[in-house]
Amino acid sequence: MITWKNMDTLASYQALKATKPVALAAAMSGENGAERVRSYTTPMGAGMDFNYGARPVDETILEALAKFAEEAQLTEKFAALYNGEVINTGEKRLVLHHLCRGQLGGDVIADGVNKREFYLGEQKKITEFVNKVHAGQITNAAGEKFTTVVQIGIGGSDLGPRAIYLALENWAKVEGCLKMKAEFISNVDPDDAAGVLSKIDVAHSLFVLVSKSGTTLETLTNESFVKDALIKAGLNPSNHMVAVTSETSPLAKSSDYLAAFFMDDYIGGRYSSSSGVGGCVLSLAFGPEVFAQFLDGAAEADELAKNADIRKNPALLDALIGVYERNVLGYPTTAVLPYSQALSRFPAHLQQLDMESNGKSVNRFGEPVNYATGPVIFGEPGTNGQHSFYQLLHQGTDIIPLQFVGFKNSQMGSDVVIQGSTSQQKLCANVAAQIMAFACGKEDTNLNKKFEGGRPSSIIIGEKLTPAALGALLAHFENKVMYQGFAWNLNSFDQEGVQLGKVLAKKVLAHDTDGALKVYSDLLNI
Amino acid sequence: MITWKNMDTLASYQALKATKPVALAAAMSGENGAERVRSYTTPMGAGMDFNYGARPVDETILEALAKFAEEAQLTEKFAALYNGEVINTGEKRLVLHHLCRGQLGGDVIADGVNKREFYLGEQKKITEFVNKVHAGQITNAAGEKFTTVVQIGIGGSDLGPRAIYLALENWAKVEGCLKMKAEFISNVDPDDAAGVLSKIDVAHSLFVLVSKSGTTLETLTNESFVKDALIKAGLNPSNHMVAVTSETSPLAKSSDYLAAFFMDDYIGGRYSSSSGVGGCVLSLAFGPEVFAQFLDGAAEADELAKNADIRKNPALLDALIGVYERNVLGYPTTAVLPYSQALSRFPAHLQQLDMESNGKSVNRFGEPVNYATGPVIFGEPGTNGQHSFYQLLHQGTDIIPLQFVGFKNSQMGSDVVIQGSTSQQKLCANVAAQIMAFACGKEDTNLNKKFEGGRPSSIIIGEKLTPAALGALLAHFENKVMYQGFAWNLNSFDQEGVQLGKVLAKKVLAHDTDGALKVYSDLLNI
Repeated sequence: MITWKNMDTLASYQALKATKPVALAAAMSGENGAERVRSYTTPMGAGMDFNYGARPVDETILEALAKFAEEAQLTEKFAALYNGEVINTGEKRLVLHHLCRGQLGGDVIADGVNKREFYLGEQKKITEFVNKVHAGQITNAAGEKFTTVVQIGIGGSDLGPRAIYLALENWAKVEGCLKMKAEFISNVDPDDAAGVLSKIDVAHSLFVLVSKSGTTLETLTNESFVKDALIKAGLNPSNHMVAVTSETSPLAKSSDYLAAFFMDDYIGGRYSSSSGVGGCVLSLAFGPEVFAQFLDGAAEADELAKNADIRKNPALLDALIGVYERNVLGYPTTAVLPYSQALSRFPAHLQQLDMESNGKSVNRFGEPVNYATGPVIFGEPGTNGQHSFYQLLHQGTDIIPLQFVGFKNSQMGSDVVIQGSTSQQKLCANVAAQIMAFACGKEDTNLNKKFEGGRPSSIIIGEKLTPAALGALLAHFENKVMYQGFAWNLNSFDQEGVQLGKVLAKKVLAHDTDGALKVYSDLLNI
Repeated sequence: MITWKNMDTLASYQALKATKPVALAAAMSGENGAERVRSYTTPMGAGMDFNYGARPVDETILEALAKFAEEAQLTEKFAALYNGEVINTGEKRLVLHHLCRGQLGGDVIADGVNKREFYLGEQKKITEFVNKVHAGQITNAAGEKFTTVVQIGIGGSDLGPRAIYLALENWAKVEGCLKMKAEFISNVDPDDAAGVLSKIDVAHSLFVLVSKSGTTLETLTNESFVKDALIKAGLNPSNHMVAVTSETSPLAKSSDYLAAFFMDDYIGGRYSSSSGVGGCVLSLAFGPEVFAQFLDGAAEADELAKNADIRKNPALLDALIGVYERNVLGYPTTAVLPYSQALSRFPAHLQQLDMESNGKSVNRFGEPVNYATGPVIFGEPGTNGQHSFYQLLHQGTDIIPLQFVGFKNSQMGSDVVIQGSTSQQKLCANVAAQIMAFACGKEDTNLNKKFEGGRPSSIIIGEKLTPAALGALLAHFENKVMYQGFAWNLNSFDQEGVQLGKVLAKKVLAHDTDGALKVYSDLLNI
């Protein structure tokens, strides 16, 4: 029997608050520190490891976190989710994105359909379509192959697929599987669509329109923008567009598209990269086999996320330590710092995933909570960030927990030896060095050169950023965010906070405003 | 006589803390709200306005901020800076980036040189070089024109120039002044250089190596990477490279470069976009005239930043309100939200500018401060962010002040009418709507749909994102950050916090480690 309770009503949470904080600099020093780093690690799928040696926990705190996880029934709640209970209480929906990657629990039958079969069926439809495009069986009107795919979507229909594409573009070049170059149009700013259109060859471009509801204003606007461009180029838009949407949307049965692929209300936008939202554009770009590898990596991480032993469940463990950092230690922000240029837009995706899921002030029953919930998430790739905002991370007045990601090998394999080491070795040496600099700091009689240390971090280490590794990485963070939502007793799957702005924007466009809103509208010449 | 004192020792700061906070939702409602928005605005150069109607101030607080500015001698300190005093106390350096754009005060003579003349002279050298490149007088060995420019730099040699290039690329396409496409290599991750090299035509590429010291490891490594590629292509690297560096650096007199352009120690990396660091690549990309317009816009904003009347000094006012939000209201983070896709990387540049300048825990004398200093800065363009992290901004448990930027007109002029409005109108309607949604919120008996409001923002409004507008925008934020540094009594111009990581990384590469650092090194296969 699952009960949903606010975190601060749990005895185990009060016990957690009463634990003694770790003196991280001391704990990470000497042979004890070495032993911590060796032992505080757990596999997270696709050959990667989650190492939490430099997070502010010890055996006592880990035991308190385990008791909290137990009392809060966190893995039971995850099981309820993947077995098809109505977890998205606000919108009265199931939460089923995991089913795109594997069958974690029993069959989920909803609306009379086995949902795993439904998602697999859509992936199969996409695969068949993509194979025809790649084989030149589906072409433009002149019978020429499509060379570019352009995703038109915003939010979850943009950030995840874009981050994944960029993460694998160079890998695919080297592997010889970059089938089509991908571009993305998202912003209602007309310069976004115009800019992308100015650099592609529309005659050889296939556009993927992604909107679950089929009513997202930005996306429909950009679709029109693109259609205009196609028509101006003497092309029939319906030969150049496919839709990814829900079966009930206005786009589903339209003859405006070469094909339509379906998702449903049980996959939220920010969790939709594993569905057709990511599957169509990424399969076109890299081939369906590559997307399948990505899903397999995610499935591995999902399986690990079921484990009730927090030390063998990296997503749960990461979530629990994050809650401890946020609520007990009081840190308001978390940075995601991949030491991989390919992951340049991955932090922006995690920013949405995390902040849109858990940036809430009411619990799943709509009652106010008395504790901090989701932190601000930001990040840029290392080593770039070291020459930028790391100054504040090291010596600023706030402590900001860090989530590093690193790979032993580069994607492209092209490298150069300078001063006795390769670039890849320099990259890895830097992330190792940063973890220790943040944790242990350095004394100096000149306080301007002193580093307090005590700044926690974890690192996810992989062999190489492959599709499978990326899938596991994505699933790890999705499951982490979901577990934090459970811990905070939130509904991580709705987003009521985005509604008011939409309503007011419509009023502005209808010139139905007064007061300050009218003044702003006038200032902006609307 | 200027005295440098910690903020909390000033009577005016204590008086500021004793003021009554503004009830923003009420203040922004009705005709009073309209009047606030109409009156709380000031020009910020290049035809733009800084509107602070929705920031949490009123007449009482503004007066308290003015008294604080006076007691802290903020404009006198700025005058000391632009008149050439040693403001960077840690490194015992002048701070002179303003001189690249104009003569704000008296002549600054340092090292026996009139510094304004020196910087102008370097700009002139760049202009002459660039004109020859564009005219086909400087070409590759085959006598063919260069078509691409690739900046090799990191941190301040990357983020600012990259953000500016992206901000003006589409504008330049439409204006017909995109002379060369620009790319950027920054990360020591070998996939960064390999990725860029895989998509350019090296035979027609000119590389701009940017390192003030001439010793930045990432940059020298990437230079070697590029040289290897040139040699493999049968090309002589010295025909394809220029350097931007200091006169004393090892690069300055090398025959490895077609030309060398100089900056000096009085221009910090994160403030260097106005110098040759930005000037060379941007002049090559857009022409020297465009870069001159950018500098003129910055100079306009700089002039405004001299005004002792805080209501006519947008940078100072923005800084003061930010200090009030950070220290009196206790908000730890600030978001920068440009409603302009062209400004997609501008927040990343401001993140460095702000967090590296003011992420400090000791004052300019190396003594600990007892108050919070620089906040975390993050941001993404709107409307994209609305479909992402805005959920937390609206309904999360922390309040995050917002800095909007919007333009009445698009850059490319290509647009489409859907549902009775253009995309540009939709874009502007959204930012207006967001300001009001954040400020005033909305009541709802369903607390999940309730918006607390009281979330402050300002907006910078311009006609169009032109080079001059961008220059003013950059200078505004530079001056704001500098004023906040003065208020917090920090040295905003050093970055000791980046040193420890460098030292430890060297140890890792030399295999001179033990304890936890050795374990991490092993885990990462170094």
